[in-house]
Amino acid sequence: MNSTKHLASETQLPNSQRIYVKGTQPGVVVPFREITQNITKSFNGGTEINEPVRVYDASGPWGDPAFKGDVRDGLPALRRHWIIARGDVEEYEGRPLRPEDNGYRSAQEAEFASQKTKGKLEEFPGLRRQPLRAKAGCNVTQMHYARKGIITPEMEYVALRENMGREAAFNALSNGDRSQLNFQHKGESFGASLPQFVTPEFVRDEIARGRAIIPANINHPEAEPMAIGRNFLVKINANIGNSAVASSIEEEVEKMRWSTKWGADTVMDLSTGKNIHATREWIIRNSPVPIGTVPIYQALEKVNGKAEDLTWEIYRDTLIEQAEQGVDYFTIHAGVRLAYIPMTAKRMTGIVSRGGSIMAKWCLAHHEESFLYTHFREICEIMRAYDVSFSLGDGLRPGSNADANDAAQFAELETLGELTKIAWEMDCQTMIEGPGHVPMHLIKENMDKQLKECHEAPFYTLGPLTTDIAPGYDHITSAIGAAMIGWYGTAMLCYVTPKEHLGLPDKKDVKDGVIAYKIAAHAADLAKGHPGAQGRDNAISKARFEFRWEDQFNLSLDPDTAREFHDETLPQEGAKAAHFCSMCGPHFCSMKITQDVRDYAAKKELDDNAALAAGMQEMSEQFKQAGAELYVKA
Amino acid sequence: MNSTKHLASETQLPNSQRIYVKGTQPGVVVPFREITQNITKSFNGGTEINEPVRVYDASGPWGDPAFKGDVRDGLPALRRHWIIARGDVEEYEGRPLRPEDNGYRSAQEAEFASQKTKGKLEEFPGLRRQPLRAKAGCNVTQMHYARKGIITPEMEYVALRENMGREAAFNALSNGDRSQLNFQHKGESFGASLPQFVTPEFVRDEIARGRAIIPANINHPEAEPMAIGRNFLVKINANIGNSAVASSIEEEVEKMRWSTKWGADTVMDLSTGKNIHATREWIIRNSPVPIGTVPIYQALEKVNGKAEDLTWEIYRDTLIEQAEQGVDYFTIHAGVRLAYIPMTAKRMTGIVSRGGSIMAKWCLAHHEESFLYTHFREICEIMRAYDVSFSLGDGLRPGSNADANDAAQFAELETLGELTKIAWEMDCQTMIEGPGHVPMHLIKENMDKQLKECHEAPFYTLGPLTTDIAPGYDHITSAIGAAMIGWYGTAMLCYVTPKEHLGLPDKKDVKDGVIAYKIAAHAADLAKGHPGAQGRDNAISKARFEFRWEDQFNLSLDPDTAREFHDETLPQEGAKAAHFCSMCGPHFCSMKITQDVRDYAAKKELDDNAALAAGMQEMSEQFKQAGAELYVKA
Repeated sequence: MNSTKHLASETQLPNSQRIYVKGTQPGVVVPFREITQNITKSFNGGTEINEPVRVYDASGPWGDPAFKGDVRDGLPALRRHWIIARGDVEEYEGRPLRPEDNGYRSAQEAEFASQKTKGKLEEFPGLRRQPLRAKAGCNVTQMHYARKGIITPEMEYVALRENMGREAAFNALSNGDRSQLNFQHKGESFGASLPQFVTPEFVRDEIARGRAIIPANINHPEAEPMAIGRNFLVKINANIGNSAVASSIEEEVEKMRWSTKWGADTVMDLSTGKNIHATREWIIRNSPVPIGTVPIYQALEKVNGKAEDLTWEIYRDTLIEQAEQGVDYFTIHAGVRLAYIPMTAKRMTGIVSRGGSIMAKWCLAHHEESFLYTHFREICEIMRAYDVSFSLGDGLRPGSNADANDAAQFAELETLGELTKIAWEMDCQTMIEGPGHVPMHLIKENMDKQLKECHEAPFYTLGPLTTDIAPGYDHITSAIGAAMIGWYGTAMLCYVTPKEHLGLPDKKDVKDGVIAYKIAAHAADLAKGHPGAQGRDNAISKARFEFRWEDQFNLSLDPDTAREFHDETLPQEGAKAAHFCSMCGPHFCSMKITQDVRDYAAKKELDDNAALAAGMQEMSEQFKQAGAELYVKA
Repeated sequence: MNSTKHLASETQLPNSQRIYVKGTQPGVVVPFREITQNITKSFNGGTEINEPVRVYDASGPWGDPAFKGDVRDGLPALRRHWIIARGDVEEYEGRPLRPEDNGYRSAQEAEFASQKTKGKLEEFPGLRRQPLRAKAGCNVTQMHYARKGIITPEMEYVALRENMGREAAFNALSNGDRSQLNFQHKGESFGASLPQFVTPEFVRDEIARGRAIIPANINHPEAEPMAIGRNFLVKINANIGNSAVASSIEEEVEKMRWSTKWGADTVMDLSTGKNIHATREWIIRNSPVPIGTVPIYQALEKVNGKAEDLTWEIYRDTLIEQAEQGVDYFTIHAGVRLAYIPMTAKRMTGIVSRGGSIMAKWCLAHHEESFLYTHFREICEIMRAYDVSFSLGDGLRPGSNADANDAAQFAELETLGELTKIAWEMDCQTMIEGPGHVPMHLIKENMDKQLKECHEAPFYTLGPLTTDIAPGYDHITSAIGAAMIGWYGTAMLCYVTPKEHLGLPDKKDVKDGVIAYKIAAHAADLAKGHPGAQGRDNAISKARFEFRWEDQFNLSLDPDTAREFHDETLPQEGAKAAHFCSMCGPHFCSMKITQDVRDYAAKKELDDNAALAAGMQEMSEQFKQAGAELYVKA
């Protein structure tokens, strides 16, 4: 669907420049992308300047043409100074890398595999820092600081970042008085309390209350802070990751960069099979966005895929391994309790979450309560030592819309609420994962129940897919559900690509998924009345109305594809300045006619308002004579 | 995005057979597609038969492999006997074809153009029947019959057709007791009164009340009857049509067939420029679905694109020309009243409807009320003489979400309600067009207001697009809004293709648009609780869960694309029978683990229920000892 011409994350988006906005705390310098626009040439010869439109930019240093980095070096450690300056962390030796971390049984096997596929299984060659962890007795989570009343640099960064759209809206407004005149939030909103302007103190308060998180492992200093919470812009996550069947490390690193270029706010590395550790290292060192993982996947590799051989010790070791690398949030399926498993036996599609089914198998094999549940407080201790955020997994999410909102799903959700309270007791940042496959009429119940049971912790949903019948198009079946649940209050939407249920996403699929989810998230921001959301729509609509084709392309989520589609019908350069489009042809353009309507008023040498008044008077006479009764409503 | 391998409407969808269900009235024989399925081979060696799934089929005779038709002959006249048998129509000479009908100033110019592009501008070579019209004093609309208590063959046909899904659901249920066990309509529904089983009498009653229409021009006997109304399956429309800039007649005929192959329930021919009449003749003679047009487009061509030169007489003549050809519904922008036009002057994007802006220009140029409004009763007389349905156009729909739900839009909607009452006085079938660009939180107000102002006449919306910022992806921005408004009660969704705002859709775009809208319509049917909707989801989910890859592809909306996506990662034939997929690999499959969970229960030589009970008992003991309090909820 989208353009495949520029399949490289290096190329910059057109007519864009990277700008930075400085905060008050040292090192708080927030990047944005500014899209410059052409002047308006009206049909009657006048001109008007259109200010640049500033947009949120998740691409990090890779999105700055001045940055000449190399993936072999990784990104600069933006947050390192902030972390050290707080004085509550210590460097330490760290856990030694073991062959089984990459899925090998011995050092010999790892060596052999590495030689066989030379250059493919290479360890990350850049700087390897000693890991950091909280000093004994310290807690280094953003929630901990927030609750102590401290506004961290991360929080100020987030505040500046969230306000971006606001200025863009003002820019669009300054272009004339038409913008936003008709836009009011008259529809239903669902209890989000969006501030007119995001202050650092507002961010701190949301984090302290647990209504938002800033996933920010102290060992991932390369990441640019971002917030997940329903009183902020709706965020999206892109899943990448190799599997036993296909794909290489380089491909995954490129997919990470590619997804952030198009707007992914976080990335989950869901790699399975060999080289999990090495792949993750490459990804984290190069990622400007928080990285999430599902540690049970790697733990399972360490026991050769046999769920029943998992132990708390192996899992715990995996958490520490990944926390030391810098993973920012862990999906942990601690709500899959032994008692809930039989509730799934009569489902249409049983347990479809990989993590959920691993734990289900373990529980049944041992006739024991899940070790994730029984060891939850110990997990919290690890999380707070590195500030890894919880993403409490929905292991019993429905895999078909027939199974949506059933007893198993909601029983688990209640347990996730219980665990949220425990995590919060220990100042651990926490979000809650949600489904899945849910028909439209059952979506709102998910959101309402999550808010209630999980005490307003941020919700992070996969779609949901609103029908099961369109494999190959599940980015669409799910963008529908994602937009709706985002409007209802979900803080982050996990993308679904067209390959869902069918295969591993390639770069084209990643982009299709990201764009579909940027659409869903932005539609939700508009519906929630986010103060910054409307500005970009207004700018692009004004450009469209004024036949500024280039601006319309450049302001869009995917300028390459918009331009390519236009050029398929009208490839001549001149056509992009033309006052008509291919749908209607030169003599048949509704927008031109509207211009004529406005010009008509101007020709009468009256300003718009006078024309309106005069026109109404004139018409009024006519209508009175004709006895038309509807006119009075005008 | 979708597969481009099989870009021909001739090829049949895989593993499908055409079946027919006979009604009680002569000639009522309703086609369906039945998708056959493989048997289930369970992990433990058992087998289970999966019944074929029957689906609604809009492709007409072209979808029957036994039909050996040629587009040069057109389709058989399915409804001809029913129409004649009613004894209320007469054949007559009809209006002679004029050069200006195809956009030429003289017969010489037409001849010259035809020679220049030999074979391209060819008149339809098949049978040209004399047109039919109502005998003097007769009214031949389905609404007229319905109000007289007559159940026409068309109504019985529709009843059988709408029940299709119902049987499919029963089929899916017969496969085992898992299906639908968890599915209940517990979410919010919006006042649709869906019958458990659609009877011909129910269809008649809905038509009589004006809550549904069967677009069925007596001069389009080739069309298979279908209903548009909110108590029936949600329908979708595909727009096609050449323009002055691009495309040929053959391409448009092929697009029409192509769109119905993928599920378009009606097709609008929005051709502009030359050869409008000839193009339409080819399309209607070959179309198994109702055809809609916007007659003002052709009328404008007849006055060389000068809106101010339009007259009631030219418009009236165009209505008759098109009614004689067999157009089933006309978009008529009779609600664009002079008084409302100034209300649009301060909009972000003015008037974006082509028909609306033509009428606006005319009204301003003449300082007169729209001739569509002043001559509305005369239009009704033409409509009822042929049973052309009204699609009352929303000429003042918003072209950007900043303009949504404004005074101009709603003033027009109120007038459309007024006109609906007049149309109904004359037994004219009527539906109402709706926007356009509307952010999510303003969508429901559109539906509620339409139902109230237009007295429950069917609503037919374009999208709506929920954000303006994604040209190239407006099939997605709008599928979100379409699914929602469909759930709220919209009867038909006009598709939007990825080329919206950018260019003319090619066949790939047409398919992308149709599939996105089949998704939206089906998601709405599920959410409304349509009795037949859930069956296909259950069948495909069961196939997915059981690793019946071929069945999963074949049951999907687009089998070609699903198969192609799967094969990109795992091209071997064997992989499609494999009990794992590429996302997870052979050792890491959540569905396999769920099977193991079920098998585990089976191994204990207990049936599912006994296992459940035993498991609960066993666990209960453990949990009591552990003091776990959550268990009691299970």
